[in-house]
Amino acid sequence: MNEAATSAKPPRDIDVVGIDADDTLWHNETYFAEAQATFVQILAPWTPEGQDVLAMHDATERANLELFGYGIKGFTLSMVETAIEVSRGEVSTSAIAELIRLGKEMLAHPVELLDGVAEAVETLGRDHRLVLITKGDLIHQETKIARSGLADRFERIEIVSEKDPETYRAILDRMEVTPERFCMVGNSVKSDVLPVLELGGHAVHVPYAITWSHEVVDSREDDAFPVLASLADLAPWLTSAG
Amino acid sequence: MNEAATSAKPPRDIDVVGIDADDTLWHNETYFAEAQATFVQILAPWTPEGQDVLAMHDATERANLELFGYGIKGFTLSMVETAIEVSRGEVSTSAIAELIRLGKEMLAHPVELLDGVAEAVETLGRDHRLVLITKGDLIHQETKIARSGLADRFERIEIVSEKDPETYRAILDRMEVTPERFCMVGNSVKSDVLPVLELGGHAVHVPYAITWSHEVVDSREDDAFPVLASLADLAPWLTSAG
Repeated sequence: MNEAATSAKPPRDIDVVGIDADDTLWHNETYFAEAQATFVQILAPWTPEGQDVLAMHDATERANLELFGYGIKGFTLSMVETAIEVSRGEVSTSAIAELIRLGKEMLAHPVELLDGVAEAVETLGRDHRLVLITKGDLIHQETKIARSGLADRFERIEIVSEKDPETYRAILDRMEVTPERFCMVGNSVKSDVLPVLELGGHAVHVPYAITWSHEVVDSREDDAFPVLASLADLAPWLTSAG
Repeated sequence: MNEAATSAKPPRDIDVVGIDADDTLWHNETYFAEAQATFVQILAPWTPEGQDVLAMHDATERANLELFGYGIKGFTLSMVETAIEVSRGEVSTSAIAELIRLGKEMLAHPVELLDGVAEAVETLGRDHRLVLITKGDLIHQETKIARSGLADRFERIEIVSEKDPETYRAILDRMEVTPERFCMVGNSVKSDVLPVLELGGHAVHVPYAITWSHEVVDSREDDAFPVLASLADLAPWLTSAG
Protein backbone atom coordinates (compact mmCIF):
# COMPACT_ATOMS: atom_id res chain seq x y z
CA MET A 1 0.00 0.00 0.00
CA ASN A 2 1.16 3.49 -0.73
CA GLU A 3 1.35 6.61 1.38
CA ALA A 4 -2.27 7.62 1.11
CA ALA A 5 -3.21 4.37 2.82
CA THR A 6 -5.43 4.91 5.80
CA SER A 7 -4.50 4.60 9.42
CA ALA A 8 -8.00 3.30 10.19
CA LYS A 9 -8.32 -0.35 11.10
CA PRO A 10 -9.70 -2.66 8.41
CA PRO A 11 -12.95 -4.46 9.25
CA ARG A 12 -12.92 -8.24 9.69
CA ASP A 13 -15.09 -10.81 7.96
CA ILE A 14 -16.28 -8.73 5.04
CA ASP A 15 -18.50 -10.89 2.82
CA VAL A 16 -19.77 -8.42 0.22
CA VAL A 17 -17.84 -5.52 -1.33
CA GLY A 18 -19.91 -2.81 -3.03
CA ILE A 19 -18.11 -0.79 -5.70
CA ASP A 20 -19.18 2.53 -7.17
CA ALA A 21 -18.71 3.00 -10.93
CA ASP A 22 -18.30 6.60 -12.19
CA ASP A 23 -14.89 7.94 -11.09
CA THR A 24 -14.19 4.73 -9.13
CA LEU A 25 -14.04 2.15 -11.93
CA TRP A 26 -13.87 4.52 -14.89
CA HIS A 27 -13.31 8.20 -15.65
CA ASN A 28 -16.42 10.33 -15.70
CA GLU A 29 -16.14 13.74 -14.06
CA THR A 30 -13.28 14.62 -16.40
CA TYR A 31 -15.62 14.42 -19.38
CA PHE A 32 -18.19 16.60 -17.64
CA ALA A 33 -15.48 19.18 -16.95
CA GLU A 34 -14.44 19.08 -20.61
CA ALA A 35 -18.04 19.42 -21.75
CA GLN A 36 -18.56 22.37 -19.42
CA ALA A 37 -15.52 24.12 -20.92
CA THR A 38 -16.96 23.56 -24.42
CA PHE A 39 -20.34 24.82 -23.21
CA VAL A 40 -18.77 28.07 -21.98
CA GLN A 41 -17.02 28.51 -25.35
CA ILE A 42 -20.19 27.89 -27.36
CA LEU A 43 -22.07 30.44 -25.27
CA ALA A 44 -19.26 33.02 -25.20
CA PRO A 45 -20.69 35.23 -28.00
CA TRP A 46 -23.90 35.71 -25.98
CA THR A 47 -22.51 35.80 -22.44
CA PRO A 48 -22.67 39.23 -20.75
CA GLU A 49 -19.39 40.24 -19.13
CA GLY A 50 -18.99 38.96 -15.60
CA GLN A 51 -21.75 36.37 -16.02
CA ASP A 52 -20.78 32.97 -14.55
CA VAL A 53 -22.31 30.51 -17.01
CA LEU A 54 -21.25 27.43 -15.05
CA ALA A 55 -22.70 28.73 -11.80
CA MET A 56 -26.00 29.34 -13.60
CA HIS A 57 -25.91 25.87 -15.16
CA ASP A 58 -25.18 24.39 -11.76
CA ALA A 59 -28.18 26.20 -10.25
CA THR A 60 -30.41 25.05 -13.13
CA GLU A 61 -29.22 21.45 -12.70
CA ARG A 62 -29.97 21.53 -8.99
CA ALA A 63 -33.43 22.96 -9.62
CA ASN A 64 -34.10 20.22 -12.19
CA LEU A 65 -32.61 17.34 -10.21
CA GLU A 66 -35.86 16.12 -8.70
CA LEU A 67 -37.52 15.91 -12.12
CA PHE A 68 -34.52 14.90 -14.23
CA GLY A 69 -32.43 12.80 -11.85
CA TYR A 70 -28.73 12.24 -12.55
CA GLY A 71 -27.25 11.80 -15.98
CA ILE A 72 -26.27 13.38 -19.24
CA LYS A 73 -29.75 13.87 -20.71
CA GLY A 74 -30.73 16.07 -17.77
CA PHE A 75 -27.32 17.80 -17.94
CA THR A 76 -27.98 18.56 -21.62
CA LEU A 77 -31.52 19.86 -21.11
CA SER A 78 -30.15 22.10 -18.34
CA MET A 79 -27.45 23.40 -20.73
CA VAL A 80 -30.14 24.38 -23.27
CA GLU A 81 -32.21 26.05 -20.57
CA THR A 82 -29.18 27.93 -19.24
CA ALA A 83 -28.11 29.00 -22.74
CA ILE A 84 -31.51 30.64 -23.38
CA GLU A 85 -31.45 32.29 -19.95
CA VAL A 86 -27.85 33.57 -20.07
CA SER A 87 -28.31 35.02 -23.56
CA ARG A 88 -31.75 36.44 -22.73
CA GLY A 89 -33.08 34.44 -25.64
CA GLU A 90 -30.48 35.70 -28.10
CA VAL A 91 -28.53 32.45 -28.46
CA SER A 92 -28.66 30.99 -31.98
CA THR A 93 -30.45 27.75 -32.72
CA SER A 94 -27.24 26.40 -34.24
CA ALA A 95 -25.58 26.90 -30.85
CA ILE A 96 -28.45 25.00 -29.22
CA ALA A 97 -28.03 22.22 -31.78
CA GLU A 98 -24.33 22.15 -30.84
CA LEU A 99 -25.25 21.68 -27.17
CA ILE A 100 -27.40 18.68 -28.04
CA ARG A 101 -24.56 17.24 -30.11
CA LEU A 102 -22.25 17.78 -27.14
CA GLY A 103 -24.62 15.77 -24.94
CA LYS A 104 -24.71 12.98 -27.51
CA GLU A 105 -20.92 12.92 -27.71
CA MET A 106 -20.79 12.50 -23.92
CA LEU A 107 -23.26 9.61 -24.10
CA ALA A 108 -21.24 7.94 -26.84
CA HIS A 109 -17.88 8.47 -25.12
CA PRO A 110 -15.80 5.31 -24.75
CA VAL A 111 -15.35 3.91 -21.26
CA GLU A 112 -11.83 4.41 -19.90
CA LEU A 113 -11.02 2.38 -16.82
CA LEU A 114 -8.91 3.96 -14.10
CA ASP A 115 -5.40 2.54 -13.80
CA GLY A 116 -5.25 -0.91 -12.24
CA VAL A 117 -9.00 -1.27 -11.92
CA ALA A 118 -9.43 -4.49 -13.90
CA GLU A 119 -6.84 -6.30 -11.74
CA ALA A 120 -8.17 -4.73 -8.54
CA VAL A 121 -11.70 -5.98 -9.22
CA GLU A 122 -10.43 -9.44 -10.09
CA THR A 123 -8.43 -9.62 -6.87
CA LEU A 124 -11.34 -8.40 -4.75
CA GLY A 125 -13.60 -10.99 -6.37
CA ARG A 126 -11.41 -13.87 -5.19
CA ASP A 127 -12.38 -13.44 -1.55
CA HIS A 128 -15.60 -11.45 -1.74
CA ARG A 129 -19.00 -11.31 -3.39
CA LEU A 130 -19.05 -8.15 -5.48
CA VAL A 131 -21.89 -5.75 -6.24
CA LEU A 132 -21.61 -2.73 -8.50
CA ILE A 133 -23.74 0.12 -7.16
CA THR A 134 -24.11 3.17 -9.37
CA LYS A 135 -26.56 5.99 -9.69
CA GLY A 136 -27.57 7.77 -12.85
CA ASP A 137 -29.28 7.20 -16.10
CA LEU A 138 -30.37 3.58 -16.59
CA ILE A 139 -29.50 3.04 -20.24
CA HIS A 140 -26.26 5.02 -20.10
CA GLN A 141 -25.00 3.18 -17.01
CA GLU A 142 -25.91 -0.17 -18.60
CA THR A 143 -24.06 0.81 -21.76
CA LYS A 144 -20.95 1.81 -19.79
CA ILE A 145 -21.03 -1.37 -17.71
CA ALA A 146 -21.27 -3.46 -20.89
CA ARG A 147 -18.43 -1.53 -22.54
CA SER A 148 -16.24 -1.78 -19.42
CA GLY A 149 -15.84 -5.52 -19.80
CA LEU A 150 -16.26 -5.86 -16.02
CA ALA A 151 -19.92 -6.92 -15.84
CA ASP A 152 -19.16 -10.61 -15.32
CA ARG A 153 -17.03 -9.87 -12.27
CA PHE A 154 -20.08 -8.77 -10.27
CA GLU A 155 -22.70 -10.96 -8.63
CA ARG A 156 -25.18 -8.10 -8.95
CA ILE A 157 -25.39 -4.77 -10.70
CA GLU A 158 -27.58 -2.16 -9.06
CA ILE A 159 -28.40 1.03 -10.94
CA VAL A 160 -30.22 3.31 -8.52
CA SER A 161 -31.70 6.80 -8.65
CA GLU A 162 -30.29 7.89 -5.27
CA LYS A 163 -27.66 6.44 -2.92
CA ASP A 164 -29.28 6.88 0.46
CA PRO A 165 -29.35 4.50 3.45
CA GLU A 166 -32.70 3.02 2.33
CA THR A 167 -31.26 2.16 -1.07
CA TYR A 168 -28.26 0.41 0.49
CA ARG A 169 -30.47 -1.41 2.99
CA ALA A 170 -32.64 -2.77 0.17
CA ILE A 171 -29.56 -4.01 -1.71
CA LEU A 172 -28.11 -5.70 1.39
CA ASP A 173 -31.50 -7.34 2.04
CA ARG A 174 -31.63 -8.68 -1.50
CA MET A 175 -28.08 -10.05 -1.08
CA GLU A 176 -28.90 -11.43 2.36
CA VAL A 177 -25.90 -9.79 3.99
CA THR A 178 -25.77 -7.76 7.20
CA PRO A 179 -24.24 -4.25 7.24
CA GLU A 180 -21.34 -5.50 9.44
CA ARG A 181 -20.25 -7.81 6.64
CA PHE A 182 -20.59 -5.21 3.88
CA CYS A 183 -17.95 -2.74 2.73
CA MET A 184 -18.64 -0.05 0.13
CA VAL A 185 -15.90 1.72 -1.82
CA GLY A 186 -16.21 4.80 -3.98
CA ASN A 187 -15.07 8.32 -4.74
CA SER A 188 -18.02 10.14 -3.22
CA VAL A 189 -18.10 10.69 0.54
CA LYS A 190 -21.72 11.81 0.25
CA SER A 191 -23.00 8.86 -1.82
CA ASP A 192 -20.61 5.98 -1.18
CA VAL A 193 -19.41 6.49 2.39
CA LEU A 194 -21.77 8.36 4.71
CA PRO A 195 -25.05 6.53 3.95
CA VAL A 196 -23.32 3.16 4.42
CA LEU A 197 -21.79 4.22 7.74
CA GLU A 198 -25.24 5.43 8.82
CA LEU A 199 -26.55 1.90 8.22
CA GLY A 200 -23.83 0.39 10.38
CA GLY A 201 -21.83 -0.86 7.41
CA HIS A 202 -18.22 -0.22 6.41
CA ALA A 203 -17.06 2.19 3.73
CA VAL A 204 -13.79 3.28 2.18
CA HIS A 205 -13.19 6.51 0.32
CA VAL A 206 -11.01 6.40 -2.80
CA PRO A 207 -10.91 10.02 -4.00
CA TYR A 208 -10.96 10.97 -7.67
CA ALA A 209 -9.10 14.00 -9.00
CA ILE A 210 -12.31 16.02 -9.41
CA THR A 211 -15.47 15.98 -7.30
CA TRP A 212 -18.79 17.12 -8.77
CA SER A 213 -20.02 20.15 -6.83
CA HIS A 214 -23.28 18.35 -5.95
CA GLU A 215 -21.28 15.63 -4.22
CA VAL A 216 -19.12 17.87 -2.07
CA VAL A 217 -19.76 17.56 1.66
CA ASP A 218 -18.32 19.50 4.55
CA SER A 219 -14.97 18.11 5.59
CA ARG A 220 -14.97 15.74 8.53
CA GLU A 221 -12.50 14.36 10.99
CA ASP A 222 -9.67 12.67 9.13
CA ASP A 223 -10.20 9.28 10.63
CA ALA A 224 -14.00 9.23 10.56
CA PHE A 225 -13.64 6.82 7.65
CA PRO A 226 -10.73 5.14 5.89
CA VAL A 227 -9.25 6.70 2.75
CA LEU A 228 -7.20 4.72 0.23
CA ALA A 229 -5.32 6.11 -2.75
CA SER A 230 -6.54 3.50 -5.20
CA LEU A 231 -9.00 0.67 -5.60
CA ALA A 232 -5.98 -1.62 -5.89
CA ASP A 233 -5.23 -0.92 -2.22
CA LEU A 234 -8.56 -2.26 -1.00
CA ALA A 235 -7.97 -6.03 -1.29
CA PRO A 236 -4.62 -5.99 0.61
CA TRP A 237 -6.10 -3.65 3.21
CA LEU A 238 -9.09 -5.95 3.83
CA THR A 239 -6.76 -8.97 3.92
CA SER A 240 -4.62 -7.24 6.53
CA ALA A 241 -7.56 -7.52 8.94
CA GLY A 242 -6.62 -11.19 9.13
CA MET B 1 -65.36 -11.60 -17.84
CA ASN B 2 -66.61 -9.49 -20.69
CA GLU B 3 -66.81 -10.03 -24.42
CA ALA B 4 -63.19 -9.29 -25.22
CA ALA B 5 -62.19 -12.24 -23.08
CA THR B 6 -59.96 -14.63 -24.91
CA SER B 7 -60.86 -18.04 -26.20
CA ALA B 8 -57.32 -19.24 -25.38
CA LYS B 9 -56.95 -21.68 -22.51
CA PRO B 10 -55.55 -20.25 -19.28
CA PRO B 11 -52.27 -21.77 -18.06
CA ARG B 12 -52.25 -23.85 -14.87
CA ASP B 13 -50.05 -23.41 -11.80
CA ILE B 14 -48.92 -19.83 -12.37
CA ASP B 15 -46.71 -18.78 -9.45
CA VAL B 16 -45.50 -15.32 -10.52
CA VAL B 17 -47.48 -12.68 -12.41
CA GLY B 18 -45.47 -9.92 -14.10
CA ILE B 19 -47.32 -6.66 -14.72
CA ASP B 20 -46.30 -3.85 -17.05
CA ALA B 21 -46.82 -0.29 -15.78
CA ASP B 22 -47.28 2.43 -18.45
CA ASP B 23 -50.70 1.99 -20.11
CA THR B 24 -51.33 -1.19 -18.12
CA LEU B 25 -51.48 0.15 -14.55
CA TRP B 26 -51.74 3.85 -15.37
CA HIS B 27 -52.32 6.16 -18.31
CA ASN B 28 -49.23 7.20 -20.22
CA GLU B 29 -49.54 7.23 -23.99
CA THR B 30 -52.45 9.69 -23.71
CA TYR B 31 -50.11 12.30 -22.23
CA PHE B 32 -47.55 11.75 -24.98
CA ALA B 33 -50.30 12.22 -27.58
CA GLU B 34 -51.39 15.45 -25.87
CA ALA B 35 -47.80 16.68 -25.69
CA GLN B 36 -47.31 15.91 -29.38
CA ALA B 37 -50.38 17.97 -30.25
CA THR B 38 -48.98 20.88 -28.21
CA PHE B 39 -45.59 20.40 -29.90
CA VAL B 40 -47.21 20.72 -33.35
CA GLN B 41 -49.00 23.91 -32.22
CA ILE B 42 -45.84 25.49 -30.80
CA LEU B 43 -43.97 24.77 -34.03
CA ALA B 44 -46.81 25.82 -36.35
CA PRO B 45 -45.44 29.34 -37.11
CA TRP B 46 -42.22 27.77 -38.46
CA THR B 47 -43.59 24.63 -40.11
CA PRO B 48 -43.46 24.63 -43.92
CA GLU B 49 -46.75 23.60 -45.51
CA GLY B 50 -47.12 19.86 -45.92
CA GLN B 51 -44.31 19.10 -43.45
CA ASP B 52 -45.22 16.27 -41.05
CA VAL B 53 -43.68 17.40 -37.76
CA LEU B 54 -44.66 14.27 -35.85
CA ALA B 55 -43.21 11.95 -38.48
CA MET B 56 -39.93 13.89 -38.25
CA HIS B 57 -39.98 13.73 -34.45
CA ASP B 58 -40.66 10.03 -34.62
CA ALA B 59 -37.68 9.51 -36.94
CA THR B 60 -35.46 11.62 -34.66
CA GLU B 61 -36.57 9.62 -31.62
CA ARG B 62 -35.79 6.34 -33.34
CA ALA B 63 -32.36 7.59 -34.37
CA ASN B 64 -31.68 8.69 -30.79
CA LEU B 65 -33.11 5.62 -29.08
CA GLU B 66 -29.84 3.77 -28.67
CA LEU B 67 -28.19 6.78 -26.99
CA PHE B 68 -31.20 8.17 -25.12
CA GLY B 69 -33.23 5.07 -24.27
CA TYR B 70 -36.92 5.39 -23.42
CA GLY B 71 -38.45 8.24 -21.49
CA ILE B 72 -39.48 11.86 -21.46
CA LYS B 73 -36.01 13.45 -21.30
CA GLY B 74 -35.04 11.79 -24.58
CA PHE B 75 -38.48 12.65 -26.00
CA THR B 76 -37.87 16.31 -25.07
CA LEU B 77 -34.34 16.49 -26.50
CA SER B 78 -35.71 14.97 -29.71
CA MET B 79 -38.44 17.66 -29.79
CA VAL B 80 -35.80 20.41 -29.56
CA GLU B 81 -33.74 18.76 -32.28
CA THR B 82 -36.79 18.36 -34.53
CA ALA B 83 -37.88 21.96 -33.92
CA ILE B 84 -34.54 23.29 -35.14
CA GLU B 85 -34.58 20.96 -38.13
CA VAL B 86 -38.20 21.58 -39.21
CA SER B 87 -37.78 25.35 -38.96
CA ARG B 88 -34.35 25.30 -40.63
CA GLY B 89 -33.02 27.03 -37.56
CA GLU B 90 -35.67 29.78 -37.58
CA VAL B 91 -37.57 28.61 -34.47
CA SER B 92 -37.47 31.13 -31.61
CA THR B 93 -35.63 30.38 -28.39
CA SER B 94 -38.82 31.09 -26.48
CA ALA B 95 -40.48 28.25 -28.41
CA ILE B 96 -37.56 25.99 -27.47
CA ALA B 97 -37.97 27.04 -23.84
CA GLU B 98 -41.66 26.11 -24.14
CA LEU B 99 -40.70 22.63 -25.37
CA ILE B 100 -38.51 22.12 -22.32
CA ARG B 101 -41.36 23.30 -20.09
CA LEU B 102 -43.64 20.84 -21.88
CA GLY B 103 -41.22 18.01 -21.07
CA LYS B 104 -41.12 19.07 -17.43
CA GLU B 105 -44.90 19.16 -17.25
CA MET B 106 -45.00 15.59 -18.55
CA LEU B 107 -42.47 14.50 -15.91
CA ALA B 108 -44.49 16.20 -13.17
CA HIS B 109 -47.84 14.84 -14.38
CA PRO B 110 -49.89 13.08 -11.68
CA VAL B 111 -50.29 9.32 -12.00
CA GLU B 112 -53.80 8.28 -13.01
CA LEU B 113 -54.56 4.61 -12.58
CA LEU B 114 -56.66 2.83 -15.20
CA ASP B 115 -60.15 1.88 -14.02
CA GLY B 116 -60.25 -1.04 -11.65
CA VAL B 117 -56.46 -1.45 -11.47
CA ALA B 118 -56.04 -1.09 -7.70
CA GLU B 119 -58.57 -3.86 -7.03
CA ALA B 120 -57.24 -6.02 -9.87
CA VAL B 121 -53.70 -5.91 -8.45
CA GLU B 122 -54.94 -6.69 -4.96
CA THR B 123 -56.91 -9.68 -6.23
CA LEU B 124 -53.98 -11.01 -8.28
CA GLY B 125 -51.71 -10.66 -5.25
CA ARG B 126 -53.86 -13.03 -3.19
CA ASP B 127 -52.85 -16.10 -5.19
CA HIS B 128 -49.64 -14.99 -6.91
CA ARG B 129 -46.28 -13.39 -6.32
CA LEU B 130 -46.29 -10.11 -8.23
CA VAL B 131 -43.48 -8.32 -10.05
CA LEU B 132 -43.82 -4.96 -11.75
CA ILE B 133 -41.72 -4.86 -14.93
CA THR B 134 -41.40 -1.52 -16.68
CA LYS B 135 -38.99 0.06 -19.08
CA GLY B 136 -38.04 3.69 -19.26
CA ASP B 137 -36.36 6.38 -17.32
CA LEU B 138 -35.23 5.22 -13.87
CA ILE B 139 -36.12 8.24 -11.75
CA HIS B 140 -39.38 8.95 -13.58
CA GLN B 141 -40.59 5.35 -13.29
CA GLU B 142 -39.66 5.30 -9.60
CA THR B 143 -41.56 8.53 -9.05
CA LYS B 144 -44.64 7.17 -10.80
CA ILE B 145 -44.52 3.89 -8.87
CA ALA B 146 -44.28 5.81 -5.59
CA ARG B 147 -47.17 8.10 -6.57
CA SER B 148 -49.32 5.17 -7.72
CA GLY B 149 -49.68 3.83 -4.20
CA LEU B 150 -49.21 0.31 -5.58
CA ALA B 151 -45.53 -0.28 -4.74
CA ASP B 152 -46.26 -2.39 -1.65
CA ARG B 153 -48.35 -4.84 -3.66
CA PHE B 154 -45.29 -6.08 -5.54
CA GLU B 155 -42.63 -8.49 -4.33
CA ARG B 156 -40.20 -6.90 -6.77
CA ILE B 157 -40.05 -3.84 -8.97
CA GLU B 158 -37.88 -4.12 -12.06
CA ILE B 159 -37.10 -1.01 -14.08
CA VAL B 160 -35.30 -2.13 -17.21
CA SER B 161 -33.88 -0.47 -20.29
CA GLU B 162 -35.25 -3.03 -22.76
CA LYS B 163 -37.83 -5.80 -22.49
CA ASP B 164 -36.19 -8.61 -24.39
CA PRO B 165 -36.05 -12.35 -23.60
CA GLU B 166 -32.69 -11.95 -21.78
CA THR B 167 -34.16 -9.30 -19.48
CA TYR B 168 -37.12 -11.52 -18.62
CA ARG B 169 -34.87 -14.54 -18.10
CA ALA B 170 -32.72 -12.60 -15.64
CA ILE B 171 -35.79 -11.50 -13.68
CA LEU B 172 -37.19 -15.05 -13.53
CA ASP B 173 -33.77 -16.30 -12.37
CA ARG B 174 -33.67 -13.73 -9.59
CA MET B 175 -37.18 -14.75 -8.52
CA GLU B 176 -36.32 -18.44 -8.84
CA VAL B 177 -39.31 -19.23 -11.00
CA THR B 178 -39.44 -21.21 -14.25
CA PRO B 179 -41.01 -19.70 -17.39
CA GLU B 180 -43.87 -22.26 -17.25
CA ARG B 181 -44.96 -20.81 -13.92
CA PHE B 182 -44.68 -17.17 -15.02
CA CYS B 183 -47.37 -15.09 -16.71
CA MET B 184 -46.74 -11.56 -17.97
CA VAL B 185 -49.51 -9.06 -18.67
CA GLY B 186 -49.26 -5.74 -20.48
CA ASN B 187 -50.46 -3.53 -23.29
CA SER B 188 -47.50 -4.04 -25.61
CA VAL B 189 -47.40 -7.15 -27.77
CA LYS B 190 -43.79 -6.35 -28.65
CA SER B 191 -42.51 -5.79 -25.11
CA ASP B 192 -44.86 -7.66 -22.79
CA VAL B 193 -46.03 -10.66 -24.83
CA LEU B 194 -43.67 -11.89 -27.57
CA PRO B 195 -40.37 -11.96 -25.61
CA VAL B 196 -42.04 -13.90 -22.78
CA LEU B 197 -43.57 -16.43 -25.19
CA GLU B 198 -40.14 -16.81 -26.79
CA LEU B 199 -38.78 -17.82 -23.37
CA GLY B 200 -41.47 -20.47 -22.96
CA GLY B 201 -43.46 -18.37 -20.49
CA HIS B 202 -47.08 -17.25 -20.59
CA ALA B 203 -48.31 -13.80 -21.56
CA VAL B 204 -51.60 -11.99 -21.83
CA HIS B 205 -52.25 -8.89 -23.90
CA VAL B 206 -54.47 -6.18 -22.40
CA PRO B 207 -54.61 -3.50 -25.11
CA TYR B 208 -54.62 0.21 -24.32
CA ALA B 209 -56.54 2.73 -26.43
CA ILE B 210 -53.35 4.03 -28.08
CA THR B 211 -50.17 2.17 -29.02
CA TRP B 212 -46.88 4.04 -29.41
CA SER B 213 -45.67 3.68 -33.00
CA HIS B 214 -42.39 2.12 -31.81
CA GLU B 215 -44.34 -0.66 -30.11
CA VAL B 216 -46.51 -1.62 -33.07
CA VAL B 217 -45.81 -5.09 -34.46
CA ASP B 218 -47.23 -6.86 -37.47
CA SER B 219 -50.54 -8.48 -36.67
CA ARG B 220 -50.43 -12.17 -35.85
CA GLU B 221 -52.87 -15.01 -35.69
CA ASP B 222 -55.70 -14.07 -33.37
CA ASP B 223 -55.17 -16.90 -30.95
CA ALA B 224 -51.36 -16.86 -30.88
CA PHE B 225 -51.74 -15.33 -27.41
CA PRO B 226 -54.65 -14.53 -25.13
CA VAL B 227 -56.16 -11.05 -25.12
CA LEU B 228 -58.22 -9.71 -22.23
CA ALA B 229 -60.15 -6.44 -22.14
CA SER B 230 -58.94 -5.38 -18.72
CA LEU B 231 -56.43 -6.24 -16.01
CA ALA B 232 -59.43 -7.05 -13.81
CA ASP B 233 -60.15 -10.04 -16.07
CA LEU B 234 -56.79 -11.68 -15.42
CA ALA B 235 -57.33 -13.11 -11.94
CA PRO B 236 -60.66 -14.82 -12.79
CA TRP B 237 -59.18 -16.11 -16.05
CA LEU B 238 -56.18 -17.63 -14.27
CA THR B 239 -58.47 -19.09 -11.62
CA SER B 240 -60.62 -20.70 -14.31
CA ALA B 241 -57.64 -22.95 -15.15
CA GLY B 242 -58.52 -24.77 -11.92
